[in-house]
Amino acid sequence: MDIAAVNALPYEDFVNIFGNVVEKCPIITAAVWTGRPFVSLGALEDAINEFIDALPESGKEGILRCHPDLAGRDLHSGTLTQESREEQARAGMDALNTEEAWRMARLNDEYKKRFGFPFVVCARMNDKVNILRQLSERCQNERAVERARGIDEVKKICRLRLQGLVLTDSPNKL
Amino acid sequence: MDIAAVNALPYEDFVNIFGNVVEKCPIITAAVWTGRPFVSLGALEDAINEFIDALPESGKEGILRCHPDLAGRDLHSGTLTQESREEQARAGMDALNTEEAWRMARLNDEYKKRFGFPFVVCARMNDKVNILRQLSERCQNERAVERARGIDEVKKICRLRLQGLVLTDSPNKL
Repeated sequence: MDIAAVNALPYEDFVNIFGNVVEKCPIITAAVWTGRPFVSLGALEDAINEFIDALPESGKEGILRCHPDLAGRDLHSGTLTQESREEQARAGMDALNTEEAWRMARLNDEYKKRFGFPFVVCARMNDKVNILRQLSERCQNERAVERARGIDEVKKICRLRLQGLVLTDSPNKL
Repeated sequence: MDIAAVNALPYEDFVNIFGNVVEKCPIITAAVWTGRPFVSLGALEDAINEFIDALPESGKEGILRCHPDLAGRDLHSGTLTQESREEQARAGMDALNTEEAWRMARLNDEYKKRFGFPFVVCARMNDKVNILRQLSERCQNERAVERARGIDEVKKICRLRLQGLVLTDSPNKL
């Protein structure tokens, strides 16, 4: 699908296809449709990032709270979104040993208790060792730092999901 | 559940319970959790409405675009949210005769083509005759008027969903 095809989509198809590029926040995709046509996939990504940046801090925390825990109850109960399931599996989150699983659960709880939102990291850009290390380190940060860091990770996840949805034979088309 | 119980909910439970008071926009519920404790159910509703009002116009259109058509394809394919299914059924949207169904589909399409977002009305406060009449009339409005009107209807739907979720033996408790 090239960007001309993306721009030609009615909002319903646009939201059906791109509605989960920010996890469980179809409102963001649905909002940026107003600003079409986009000159490139990068311009669509920019519009999403600008919408996120313009939200109040509570709205940014709201985005983070729509994300599942890594290796958490949604993974075990099969209620992850398809995108999250694939991303968590790729990072090895569905194949932790007992010690790793216990450590992940304990650190996730510590993080959520401290900040009031979950630890968000772009799983596809990390492996399980790296994720556990970052989770442990980030538990020590200030709340505002973690809110901003989490949103940076949301944007990385969004970029990879967008790229995965708009498969092109030629990168130059987008 | 009284307001003290609502205020005591971890964000995950809060979003699980109240995440769809604005259709498919759990980010809004997840955002207002930041502002707890709420002194009453009304204060929670106010926080949601204030969050919506502070969104850019594109964000308000985004909320509307997360809503299904009345008597539309989600109803027929069984993909409505539970809340929407019950509300549409109560307004008789699942029992239109052929003539009514044809008229509804034609007017929904006209509305969406004109405004770029769907016709939103609080189905529980209307019946099918009333809904068809309003849809026909509202097709004639200006875009900005309809955006504001749609958001007013979103807030009515939200209020009824909130009240339905917080069942109290004494209304004075909330």
